[in-house]
Amino acid sequence: MSQAPAAWEANPEPGQAPGDAVQEQAAYRQALSADLEQFLDFQREVLEDVSSESVPLLGAVHSLAKGGKRLRALLNYWGWRGAGGDALGAPAIRAGVALELFQSAALIHDDIIDRSDTRRGAPSVHRHFSNRHAEAEWFLDGQHFGSSAAILAGDLCLALSEEAFTSVGERAAYNTRARALFNRMRTEVMAGQYLDILEEVVGPGHEPERAVVRARNILRYKSAKYSIEHPLAIGGALAGAGNELLAAYSQFALPLGEAFQLRDDVLGVFGDPELTGKPAGDDLREGKRTVLIAYALSAGSEAVRKEITDNLGRPDLDDDAVASLRTAIEESGALATTEALIAEHTEQAFTTLASLAVDEQTRSALELLAHAAVTRTA
Amino acid sequence: MSQAPAAWEANPEPGQAPGDAVQEQAAYRQALSADLEQFLDFQREVLEDVSSESVPLLGAVHSLAKGGKRLRALLNYWGWRGAGGDALGAPAIRAGVALELFQSAALIHDDIIDRSDTRRGAPSVHRHFSNRHAEAEWFLDGQHFGSSAAILAGDLCLALSEEAFTSVGERAAYNTRARALFNRMRTEVMAGQYLDILEEVVGPGHEPERAVVRARNILRYKSAKYSIEHPLAIGGALAGAGNELLAAYSQFALPLGEAFQLRDDVLGVFGDPELTGKPAGDDLREGKRTVLIAYALSAGSEAVRKEITDNLGRPDLDDDAVASLRTAIEESGALATTEALIAEHTEQAFTTLASLAVDEQTRSALELLAHAAVTRTA
Repeated sequence: MSQAPAAWEANPEPGQAPGDAVQEQAAYRQALSADLEQFLDFQREVLEDVSSESVPLLGAVHSLAKGGKRLRALLNYWGWRGAGGDALGAPAIRAGVALELFQSAALIHDDIIDRSDTRRGAPSVHRHFSNRHAEAEWFLDGQHFGSSAAILAGDLCLALSEEAFTSVGERAAYNTRARALFNRMRTEVMAGQYLDILEEVVGPGHEPERAVVRARNILRYKSAKYSIEHPLAIGGALAGAGNELLAAYSQFALPLGEAFQLRDDVLGVFGDPELTGKPAGDDLREGKRTVLIAYALSAGSEAVRKEITDNLGRPDLDDDAVASLRTAIEESGALATTEALIAEHTEQAFTTLASLAVDEQTRSALELLAHAAVTRTA
Repeated sequence: MSQAPAAWEANPEPGQAPGDAVQEQAAYRQALSADLEQFLDFQREVLEDVSSESVPLLGAVHSLAKGGKRLRALLNYWGWRGAGGDALGAPAIRAGVALELFQSAALIHDDIIDRSDTRRGAPSVHRHFSNRHAEAEWFLDGQHFGSSAAILAGDLCLALSEEAFTSVGERAAYNTRARALFNRMRTEVMAGQYLDILEEVVGPGHEPERAVVRARNILRYKSAKYSIEHPLAIGGALAGAGNELLAAYSQFALPLGEAFQLRDDVLGVFGDPELTGKPAGDDLREGKRTVLIAYALSAGSEAVRKEITDNLGRPDLDDDAVASLRTAIEESGALATTEALIAEHTEQAFTTLASLAVDEQTRSALELLAHAAVTRTA
């Protein structure tokens, strides 16, 4: 199975030599992909029983789920290993499949919400279905058909992610810590996504004195907890981690998650198009209400505030307007504040990691993942 | 908790006297509503922890889920009772909550797909959120905000339905029959919904010789199995029903489900607006590709086929055009064929029910539900 090349696959630098961790992680990736294929093969039979014409719904899920960086599955795996779970343990593989399917479901629906036409280098799911509509010269509104099919594909993927999680068996049964974390993760990320779309429509002028607080809260629930903290904790809980270890995991993972997303926010405005693969300043055109923007709005001059308020979310922003916004954000001090926050969170994460009560192999693996998360350029 | 008045609440006719079943069903309804409230109260706390501004997402789910006819929960209950489950048993109550939440999730996303502005006498969820947008005079596209929020509300509701089902405990754990049925139900209904939207876009001229087969397949998976067969079977499985009883349940429930949905199809074209609460011929304007329509297309004359092909799905159909389509459908013989199919399925269902290996109270209750399902006028 091919993977998108990504920072998560980073090789250790010479001298670090956590060779075993790297090898084991590669073996886990392979096992994860094989298990995902097996799981989806069974589902394909269920859809075939309904009608072969329904299989493309699963096909869209499959195409998306087989790609990706596997960040959540890997964190879940090292959370499991750090808590004493056995190498390539089946529960950690299947839970990884569940987390990756949940992420795919979230992406399918996110792309409808954000009107994104591409994902992982291919058409997004709604675009895939509207393309099918166009190619087959079907009737009625192809765009609406695309969104509708993608809503259903996301629903199917969401149901399958839970089916996979339940199939972990007793360690993920009702009343286990792992199940409670999985449930909380889902509810929190959906609430966070709602806050995110709400933030966009209330507009940049809404209670500006609370803009940073709101943006950091969205970042925490929509991204940091969901992408980093919960996967690590779920893996740990599956292996029977106690309260103390889980609390230490959070002290490492939450600041790491915040730094990870703040880095993403900076890249979305200041990233190099050649490295990110997205147009310069893409987040500005999309009108993303990030922590970076919130700082600029709260710390910037009247003129900066006005420039942002007038231009953020305009799909037709040209390169000059993007450059001017970048300068305004930088001069407001928001970039420096955000970079300082990234540095602070990163330090917190690495300090906690240094004394985390896990074996050295797990520590090396988490170090590599953490390093990749906060220093990436794409 | 107020319920929409519905056929499901039908009192027994004099002479039938299944008084105990009616009383017990009323007690179950009450317990179901109380349990739903308790379940959602807990969820509200999770959202409050994220931010009080995220609570409206759950509010939308709550408003929808507290209404409805409770058909699926009731079938699950009598499936449970018929298999020896105890009166008002907690597993059957919580499983009912799960089924009703699943149905709410399906409705929230269906209404986006069907562009329906009302549901259960109130604005549909996407309309509710676009109304909030308009009232608050928020920025950007209010309609897109409404759909986006409804996608997230449906996702939350879907996740919660599974959380509720898992909380049934051991009887619904991994590797139980009930869990396998719940999983299959979800996948099948999503596949059925996809086939349904596909059928609309491929157009009325697509492989007309297979139109009836396709329409009956969609009806089976999207409606008959989902609304009738699976809920009854899940209740039975939770109470430990064996293969024989579950097979007998299906022999009763599947034809009943088909008759139930065929009745719905007939009402959507020939129903009395005063009774259905929808405009006359609403399904014709919406372009629904029902079994009734498939019969008309396959059995009708060239002129009938052309009239249907030209007019089905036109939102601007006036009363005369609706009346003309009704006549064409009736004269093609499609109405008579559909009514004959309803009668045949109904007879199959009642024949099976008469010898079903359940206690008399359960039989009475299922008789009432079945009777209401196939003779309703709204």
